[in-house]
Amino acid sequence: MANAYRTELDRRPPTSPREHLSSPVTRAVLRIQHRILSAAREFFAARDFVELLAPIIGPVTDPGTRGSKQVDVDFYGHRYKLMTSAILYKQASLLAFDKIFYVAPNVRLEPPETASTDRHLAEFHQIDVEIAGASAHDVQSVLTGLVRHVVRRVVADLPAELELLGRDPAALTGFVDRPFDRMSHTDAVAVLRELGHPQDPHAEIDWAGEQVLSDKADAPFFVVDYPKGSRGFYDRESRGEPGVLRNFDLIAPEGYGELCSGSEREFEYSRIVARMRETGENPAKYGWYLRMVREGIPASAGFGLGLERFTRYVAGLPAVWQASAYPKLPGVVSP
Amino acid sequence: MANAYRTELDRRPPTSPREHLSSPVTRAVLRIQHRILSAAREFFAARDFVELLAPIIGPVTDPGTRGSKQVDVDFYGHRYKLMTSAILYKQASLLAFDKIFYVAPNVRLEPPETASTDRHLAEFHQIDVEIAGASAHDVQSVLTGLVRHVVRRVVADLPAELELLGRDPAALTGFVDRPFDRMSHTDAVAVLRELGHPQDPHAEIDWAGEQVLSDKADAPFFVVDYPKGSRGFYDRESRGEPGVLRNFDLIAPEGYGELCSGSEREFEYSRIVARMRETGENPAKYGWYLRMVREGIPASAGFGLGLERFTRYVAGLPAVWQASAYPKLPGVVSP
Repeated sequence: MANAYRTELDRRPPTSPREHLSSPVTRAVLRIQHRILSAAREFFAARDFVELLAPIIGPVTDPGTRGSKQVDVDFYGHRYKLMTSAILYKQASLLAFDKIFYVAPNVRLEPPETASTDRHLAEFHQIDVEIAGASAHDVQSVLTGLVRHVVRRVVADLPAELELLGRDPAALTGFVDRPFDRMSHTDAVAVLRELGHPQDPHAEIDWAGEQVLSDKADAPFFVVDYPKGSRGFYDRESRGEPGVLRNFDLIAPEGYGELCSGSEREFEYSRIVARMRETGENPAKYGWYLRMVREGIPASAGFGLGLERFTRYVAGLPAVWQASAYPKLPGVVSP
Repeated sequence: MANAYRTELDRRPPTSPREHLSSPVTRAVLRIQHRILSAAREFFAARDFVELLAPIIGPVTDPGTRGSKQVDVDFYGHRYKLMTSAILYKQASLLAFDKIFYVAPNVRLEPPETASTDRHLAEFHQIDVEIAGASAHDVQSVLTGLVRHVVRRVVADLPAELELLGRDPAALTGFVDRPFDRMSHTDAVAVLRELGHPQDPHAEIDWAGEQVLSDKADAPFFVVDYPKGSRGFYDRESRGEPGVLRNFDLIAPEGYGELCSGSEREFEYSRIVARMRETGENPAKYGWYLRMVREGIPASAGFGLGLERFTRYVAGLPAVWQASAYPKLPGVVSP
């Protein structure tokens, strides 16, 4: 990202809610975030999505969250979890509607050392979408349309806020009328290794690698088809190319990194159980979910767009905590 | 509420997400809830409110929740709580904006016996509003306008869903053009005692009493000016009438009971500390909040409208769990 922004804004996390909430920077950012959400809702309303409210706790949640820990809660004597993502409930929701979205809150205890990455919060939100019968390609199109619509609205409606933040709208308007580029995970590995970055071809693109790709880009782009070992049991494995997942990330340009992960989903009981075992998950933990899957759920695809990361990118912020009204940094406890 | 609805719809909680989510009743209810939220957002957008995302966990939360328990979580070795209401953060948010709202998720471990009241959920949402410089009267007006606007929109846009649920729109349209009645807590006590209900004049209106008042009404109405012992430290005590709080509940007609609580807020450090002590709260637990209050926060008033209860009322549902996509009843654990 442009160093100008880094020096203009203070990257030190706030020492009090007052310091954060009374800052003109925070006010501008929160107005932008509000507009991002209202623009997203316009976009979904025009396409007949139903917005549902995601659960906060449940007996089981998404295990596929690199390096972070889940939070236990005692629910009438039973161990429940705070949601780390809404994935299991998104699949359930397709029993009611074919196209749904949430603005879902999540809590992940990321390692304390991630407090200084500028891109991790322990509490954050995702714009979470799931569509019955959709392909990975279909939901990439929805995500592209969503990002473009939101960016257009923010640029059109909040020029004063962007100016106060030193965010040049030209960085955002360059791409709103063209498709986003798409590279495979294999190609991303090759690009990184050519640049001297030792990316493991069988793993998630690591943060440093993602940063390299993001720094080189001037528009959001997709990385698609991650290898099986790198993601949760619910990302669907290609039938034609075993070991390859029908999934994708959307990476922001200018060094802002990953904004969104999405995928086609596994939906057949036997395959989900097999994938759980492969990823080290105990199927016995997934009582209600596996009972539901056994009776049949729709094929689907969907994505989760990190709201605070997306806000950070649109607003051009040095750090993601600036995109939360009440930021919780990993390992940082309020006195 | 009319018995016709009770017999038409099954009051037994669902045995699985499939049973609940694939029911035409649930689909109709969730479409109504979606429209309630979009109509609420229209209402607030037209009045320059900023929507913020409420926190999920924090070092301290609202203690003033009758009979329910808070949920502890371990946040990097420190005891945090799931939010039981967003009240402390609503006051903080006025450091950024004069008029804010949340659609805030809350978790309260209500006693297991409340699972059969038809009006308690362990996980629920509130449309939470706070306005700097407002009086109790001001926010009652905002709430009245909000309820009317939402009801008008649902009746206009979702006639098929209301019909499927057996909800006669006439029960809702009778009041959309007139002010809501207002009775003081003192008068409510007198009415109840005259009817033979032994309401304690120094306490919250009990559930049975609230039911009696609600059954008699044909439009939502306010009960105002509760006695000090009945509510949390943040409801402002009248300066002219010590012992009386500048607060209110909005009660739905037809037996649906309380929808919303609101109040002017205490905002002066010494009074808040005194009220905490009177209500048995240890000020030492309220670190960040009391530091903020000591440095000064705006006077304000606000309310929290129970989204699932409001949905239940608008949709004419026998039980509040029907107004949640993933209902959590007190004491009922998912296998």
